[in-house]
Amino acid sequence: MLFRQLYDNETSTYTYLIADEISREAVLVDPVLEQVDRDLKLLQELGLTLRYCIETHIHADHVTGTDKLRSLTGCQGIVPENAKVACADRFMKDGEILRIGNIEIKAIATLGHTDSHNSYLVNGDRVLTGDSLFIRGCGRTDFQSGDPGLMYDHVTQKLFTLPDETLVYPGHDYKGHTVSTIGEEKKYNPRFVGKDRASFIEMMNNLNLPDPKKIAEAVPANERCGKVLV
Amino acid sequence: MLFRQLYDNETSTYTYLIADEISREAVLVDPVLEQVDRDLKLLQELGLTLRYCIETHIHADHVTGTDKLRSLTGCQGIVPENAKVACADRFMKDGEILRIGNIEIKAIATLGHTDSHNSYLVNGDRVLTGDSLFIRGCGRTDFQSGDPGLMYDHVTQKLFTLPDETLVYPGHDYKGHTVSTIGEEKKYNPRFVGKDRASFIEMMNNLNLPDPKKIAEAVPANERCGKVLV
Repeated sequence: MLFRQLYDNETSTYTYLIADEISREAVLVDPVLEQVDRDLKLLQELGLTLRYCIETHIHADHVTGTDKLRSLTGCQGIVPENAKVACADRFMKDGEILRIGNIEIKAIATLGHTDSHNSYLVNGDRVLTGDSLFIRGCGRTDFQSGDPGLMYDHVTQKLFTLPDETLVYPGHDYKGHTVSTIGEEKKYNPRFVGKDRASFIEMMNNLNLPDPKKIAEAVPANERCGKVLV
Repeated sequence: MLFRQLYDNETSTYTYLIADEISREAVLVDPVLEQVDRDLKLLQELGLTLRYCIETHIHADHVTGTDKLRSLTGCQGIVPENAKVACADRFMKDGEILRIGNIEIKAIATLGHTDSHNSYLVNGDRVLTGDSLFIRGCGRTDFQSGDPGLMYDHVTQKLFTLPDETLVYPGHDYKGHTVSTIGEEKKYNPRFVGKDRASFIEMMNNLNLPDPKKIAEAVPANERCGKVLV
């Protein structure tokens, strides 16, 4: 398997390129509109055919590159079940598996940051957690129908029950971490360690964070698969 | 082997944490002063003992975290042979090997960005290239006794002769790439592809880049192992 972590400096967003080295088929998870040229060039140089752009959720901090990539490559756009994205080619529900060559990508519905959100377990040994579990943190739950109780339940019951050595690749990192493991996050994630459901909810409801800068533009654009209206 | 790539957003610098999972001994390559607290916390959480801070070269764009880490942990500071760093505990010359548990870190002198610069080949399968080879680029050669001819010779004769599948982990990336391979860089690095030594030198001598913002502060501080004078 070819696996590349890519970074958007402006929004601290990670995009993941996953490809089967035999069939040369590829997916991009959470592509960023401003990085489409970089990503296309890399796909071309590596001799890969982009089959799918997969979203972990409808992002509020950046516009997805899916619409542009789809129009340029003919790939399909995949979003989580229940995401309000009429233009998606496919919806993945909890437990559903996408196969790309010999690679197995399994959706794990991890709600809470938004009311439609998947993590993706890749070949059983690494999980792309989007904006649910971050390295020593988690996504916020105060807009887009966020729900801290659901976040707590899904992180602790669905992600923290994966094997300790499972690699954690988040949708963002703001401190320069690139990867962690489930074992580490169970032991050291300050959002969850020593917190029961009620105290987690209370903490999350009192973060008082400012809105992401691009939210007014990003959410409606992402509901159109990232199509930017002129 | 435990291998972690860490990122400093302000200067687009990569720091590498490498540790032996049995002996729990660790090294940091190119630590950044402003990230020392993050790095110490990670070492502690992972149950690691920091043995060495290793520099690829005397940096001009950020102050190294070595002095602070050394005073807090008792680790040793290692720099390339001929680096003007009187406070270093050890100098590594071309071909010299540092062992840390079962991990072998081999210095490959790759001059040109500065007149003392090592790449480090880790366990034979990945090379930390500092500011010599970047992903689809290379370090500048217009200050600190830089020499584009040496850069060309050492990248093409010492790095590009490593096996194609060798992973390339650079000291910086400005476009969000995290890793590449020697094979990819041989094929697609625009600084080297299709260029002979003379045209490479001409190109490098005409980049007309502005000085790094921190150069006046960083170079003298790094010649003191990163000790900041009050």
